[in-house]
Amino acid sequence: MHAAIDATHDPQLRSWVASANQPGGDFPIQNLPFGRFRVAGSGRPLRIGVAIGDQILDLQAARLVEGCDMNALMAAPAAERLALRHALSQGLRADSAQQNQWSQALVAQDRAEMALPCDIGDYTDFYTSVHHATNVGRQFRPDNPLLPNYKWVPIGYHGRASSIGVSGQRVHRPQGQTMAAGASAPALGPSRRLDYELELGWFIGQGNDLGTPIGMGAAEQHLFGVALFNDWSARDLQGWEYQPLGPFLSKNFASTLAPWVVTLEALAPFRAPFERPATDPQPLPYLDAPGHRAQGAFSITLEVLLQTGRMRAAAQPAVRLSCTNTTRAAYWTPAQLVAHHTVNGCNLRPGDLLGSGTLSGPEPHEAGSLLELARSGRQPVELPNGEQRSFLEDGDTLTLRGWCERAGAVRIGLGEVSGVVTG
Amino acid sequence: MHAAIDATHDPQLRSWVASANQPGGDFPIQNLPFGRFRVAGSGRPLRIGVAIGDQILDLQAARLVEGCDMNALMAAPAAERLALRHALSQGLRADSAQQNQWSQALVAQDRAEMALPCDIGDYTDFYTSVHHATNVGRQFRPDNPLLPNYKWVPIGYHGRASSIGVSGQRVHRPQGQTMAAGASAPALGPSRRLDYELELGWFIGQGNDLGTPIGMGAAEQHLFGVALFNDWSARDLQGWEYQPLGPFLSKNFASTLAPWVVTLEALAPFRAPFERPATDPQPLPYLDAPGHRAQGAFSITLEVLLQTGRMRAAAQPAVRLSCTNTTRAAYWTPAQLVAHHTVNGCNLRPGDLLGSGTLSGPEPHEAGSLLELARSGRQPVELPNGEQRSFLEDGDTLTLRGWCERAGAVRIGLGEVSGVVTG
Repeated sequence: MHAAIDATHDPQLRSWVASANQPGGDFPIQNLPFGRFRVAGSGRPLRIGVAIGDQILDLQAARLVEGCDMNALMAAPAAERLALRHALSQGLRADSAQQNQWSQALVAQDRAEMALPCDIGDYTDFYTSVHHATNVGRQFRPDNPLLPNYKWVPIGYHGRASSIGVSGQRVHRPQGQTMAAGASAPALGPSRRLDYELELGWFIGQGNDLGTPIGMGAAEQHLFGVALFNDWSARDLQGWEYQPLGPFLSKNFASTLAPWVVTLEALAPFRAPFERPATDPQPLPYLDAPGHRAQGAFSITLEVLLQTGRMRAAAQPAVRLSCTNTTRAAYWTPAQLVAHHTVNGCNLRPGDLLGSGTLSGPEPHEAGSLLELARSGRQPVELPNGEQRSFLEDGDTLTLRGWCERAGAVRIGLGEVSGVVTG
Repeated sequence: MHAAIDATHDPQLRSWVASANQPGGDFPIQNLPFGRFRVAGSGRPLRIGVAIGDQILDLQAARLVEGCDMNALMAAPAAERLALRHALSQGLRADSAQQNQWSQALVAQDRAEMALPCDIGDYTDFYTSVHHATNVGRQFRPDNPLLPNYKWVPIGYHGRASSIGVSGQRVHRPQGQTMAAGASAPALGPSRRLDYELELGWFIGQGNDLGTPIGMGAAEQHLFGVALFNDWSARDLQGWEYQPLGPFLSKNFASTLAPWVVTLEALAPFRAPFERPATDPQPLPYLDAPGHRAQGAFSITLEVLLQTGRMRAAAQPAVRLSCTNTTRAAYWTPAQLVAHHTVNGCNLRPGDLLGSGTLSGPEPHEAGSLLELARSGRQPVELPNGEQRSFLEDGDTLTLRGWCERAGAVRIGLGEVSGVVTG
């Protein structure tokens, strides 16, 4: 069962929360993303909340959930999740009978302190952009950029859950071993090639038992939703350490998630075809399903913004580094990631995170990392204030944004994820 | 502060639990390993227990801990952990005043159902045997077996926590993509090259904050103890998927831990020099410390046993496949793994697991995997009953054992970890 377009997506719907009705906002009543929060500075236990306009509806205060276990909420069967979405949509719409009661359950977003959306047991990072794989492969293996398995296997690897933080995270520049060209021994020092990666993080809803694969037909039922995700990377550490077992210290010093998880139900109007050029290998049967070619992908526009320390001091706004769309960047769909991850019987648990990998589109200006935009330092990015960037510098604030829009549907947004680099 | 030899290691100590005094047992009073258990079939919440002879002391029933939070126990400062060890040693020794009370807190091991020792947040697997790295490298990269970084970097990567089970685990033969030699497309099917890996799992005690490395001088204070660990591997899946981001589905279908964690305190009599041939690169300063060369390693003897389905049906005992010792196999010490893992600021949490990687010694019969013992299938292992093994077959039970012994100390054991392969 795919999440389908229903009354909760009606473009005519308005909310009694006035800020939700402003055109172009991230959180209209058609969105209803989930997060965890507390009133800033209160030190109180986290609550589950739903973003609506510039407010948060506290689900416990609104008597929609008992307790604050987001992982349990994510694990609920699809029908229960849908029922909650309908209750939220009903209660938040203009002239709802809930308005009096629920208006007491609102907290302004600017008064809230957001936490990670859930407890993340395992975090897997994929590599779904063939353009990123080719661009990065060229840096590490100039003669062999795209490996023979890429177009057959949704390449992925395990990442570190402990160092995932929420938007606003301060990212300490990592130190590590690097081997300089021509040197006879590596040296320890701070990374000089610190980078971001524009990613989406897909959250698992219902899990599966160890030994029981999830087929393509059921894969989306196990996906709860999506959040913006920045997988910070130290390219110099990565180049020296990554063979033969993959990236490790070059990645696990920090990753940053946006606080809001947009559900698969909210994404229903933004489905897109899953396209595979006829000249490419076609997915093996376990990665294909009836209907998947027609609507297995989701169209999400993504952008990367940078504000340097000097820009901030001069009160200059962040500048856009790149912009792309998942349909241009992703070679594999979220359902294919789930089917592949479990084909060997691996168990996924509610709240597990599947990173998309860096979502670079086909054109150079659509690249999802500085490594790509600045051609590994050979063509530094020129900023409007005269600064240049080959890699991130201390004081840089990097922000990812994402949204979905199409004719006939109300735009919904994923909010944003920011992090600042510190020495 | 290193855990030192003290009165709890006195070879003269005897316990009022008679089975603990039998020579050659795994769990004399000098050991005192921790695990989690319930009375088999009771369905009751897990309890923290300490193995003593063929019994388990229930720490809650003995009023030594409140509640059953092993991760909290692991996180306790070294002085608290030492105090608990001394209390256990005092109360369990012959003629202790605790005998009357604590004898009510014993559960026979053969009546207990063991669980994972703790909740594992993140699992990292290292690659600490240079012999294994060379042997395996030869299979995947005949012209380039040991990569240039190996002797500088304690190579590691993140593994999957969700699929780690406790001894007795039934391991489903995973299916996955493989690419046959000369084929033009991969195929999906059950792994035909299923293997085990002889490993130790080192558990983190006290964690560290994100951004705060743990130096070599403090590294052992963050280690709680060690358990036997089998990192099952599907070599055919691995060969096709592992580039460029490392092993994924070839590993994450199952890993099996022994139920008992032997503490660093118990290992104190079995310290060994950390040796590095003068002709090899010497560890960078962040991986070295005063005194580390003299006693940074631990001497643990390890063996691998196989009982095939046919052997079991004929009531034939398991046969030894290989035997080695950590001092022969490990190129890096546990302290070096902690220092390396955190040098970039990565945070470790109590209960996190650091796998040693396959512990193969220098001689062929010391190899810690079938891939190595059977030379990638070219020289199948001959079993006494006439069977051969290149890789594991359905019905095979694979068991790892480990123990420490030296003149002047009482032998202590790590128990065993078993798993059976199912179709």
